[in-house]
Amino acid sequence: MGPLLIIGGNEDKTGERVILKRVVELTQQSSRTPAIGVVTTASRQGESAYQRYHRIFADLGVDQVLDFTLESRKEAEASAMVERMVGTATLFFSGGDQLRITSVLGGTAFHQALLQEHKRGLNIAGTSAGASMMSDTMIVTGDAEEAPTKNTVHMAPGMGLWVGAVIDQHFSQRGRIGRLLSALAQNPGILGVGLDEDTAIEVRLDQGIVDVWGSRTVTLLDGRQVACTNASESSADRPLAITGVTLHVLPQGYGFDLNTRRPYQRQRED
Amino acid sequence: MGPLLIIGGNEDKTGERVILKRVVELTQQSSRTPAIGVVTTASRQGESAYQRYHRIFADLGVDQVLDFTLESRKEAEASAMVERMVGTATLFFSGGDQLRITSVLGGTAFHQALLQEHKRGLNIAGTSAGASMMSDTMIVTGDAEEAPTKNTVHMAPGMGLWVGAVIDQHFSQRGRIGRLLSALAQNPGILGVGLDEDTAIEVRLDQGIVDVWGSRTVTLLDGRQVACTNASESSADRPLAITGVTLHVLPQGYGFDLNTRRPYQRQRED
Repeated sequence: MGPLLIIGGNEDKTGERVILKRVVELTQQSSRTPAIGVVTTASRQGESAYQRYHRIFADLGVDQVLDFTLESRKEAEASAMVERMVGTATLFFSGGDQLRITSVLGGTAFHQALLQEHKRGLNIAGTSAGASMMSDTMIVTGDAEEAPTKNTVHMAPGMGLWVGAVIDQHFSQRGRIGRLLSALAQNPGILGVGLDEDTAIEVRLDQGIVDVWGSRTVTLLDGRQVACTNASESSADRPLAITGVTLHVLPQGYGFDLNTRRPYQRQRED
Repeated sequence: MGPLLIIGGNEDKTGERVILKRVVELTQQSSRTPAIGVVTTASRQGESAYQRYHRIFADLGVDQVLDFTLESRKEAEASAMVERMVGTATLFFSGGDQLRITSVLGGTAFHQALLQEHKRGLNIAGTSAGASMMSDTMIVTGDAEEAPTKNTVHMAPGMGLWVGAVIDQHFSQRGRIGRLLSALAQNPGILGVGLDEDTAIEVRLDQGIVDVWGSRTVTLLDGRQVACTNASESSADRPLAITGVTLHVLPQGYGFDLNTRRPYQRQRED
């Protein structure tokens, strides 16, 4: 099973490029064809998004940057794109609107192949909307910077690459903890993942580990110890109650064990 | 010992006025003279702040609304203001800049009398800056909406009414969890208290209880289970690490036991 590299948006594209270099590293370490396919479905300017990432990945030494400018369900059902994916080391989902990703790709031949190739070692990276879509249930919209209410967050089915998590991006930058808490209150069994800009997690589901990369922090909200929420009782606009959430703030050099639900410090700084 | 009524700013002044009515109720329940003194030191427009709250409290049935427009240390050392405080049921600290409160009042005869009268039953209410100043160490400034770093928060000695807590206000509205986490990382023994606008806590230190009032939520960050922070290691602008924080989001109808460190639901909705 390939790792997921889930990026909180606005990753450094001109400086150290820690995260995008990690995408390249994972691509080069793969036993598959060392190519990166750029899926631009989230964007309304798919072609320019592809050109942009093409330049960046080429500059970082990737010879094959493949165009997955998928804009319709028809294209997502066609065999051409599926064939292009098979054997490729990495797919990179660019940002935009996560509902475009799920409404165009959800349930198509491309989606089926994505899930299957992921199990066969395909690396899947995604930034911003491309991060949100990874989970089973994804956040679509929600008020930031208001007190959390049931109404704070609207969710939809995601692409199902990471079951049991809900991912939010641009997290500290847009004050989004309220909407992630609202999501958690509705099902404390999920792991709430808040990714700051220029920050990513590398998730290896087969090993149950999550490692942090980038310049800022990842906020994990673990609801396993939640004693009470009023999510089912209160009307939509009433303020939320949720007690006993365990919160971790982790920068690069730290990780999280999904089995024990404990954070750890990596042996060496990467 | 009188209760503290600590308000996250922007309390409703024209509608239901739940919080300001609670100030009046506490005043009327007191065995002391049923008067409210308005301390406007935080504001540069002290006189107009006094007039504003005078109108509101008079409208809510308080006959005596006393003027504590203290603007200099000299005034805060004078016996007139101390005498006016003795026997009064409630002092209400209006908003503005918490550093004005501590720099004008800190260590003066007025401050000494405040601590002493509080022990003798004086109710102390405060909104916004008047909330922040209550703790032993207070947040002065800090970047919101950035990832937490050591640098995210600047603190100063507060008025020492609530030892062991750090209070932040306008909490969800200004995306301030990062700076409260930065404060907590530096000393996980404190209780981090994030008050939303139009939301208050009534703190009875002698009973060890905290009750929530108002239309939004209070976020409590309890650091007792924190396993690690990098507050002492990392340089000022490195991203913060803190693991194992317990987080509670509580609306009106809920409370928190300071001794057991557990939230509770009040028997009836107030």
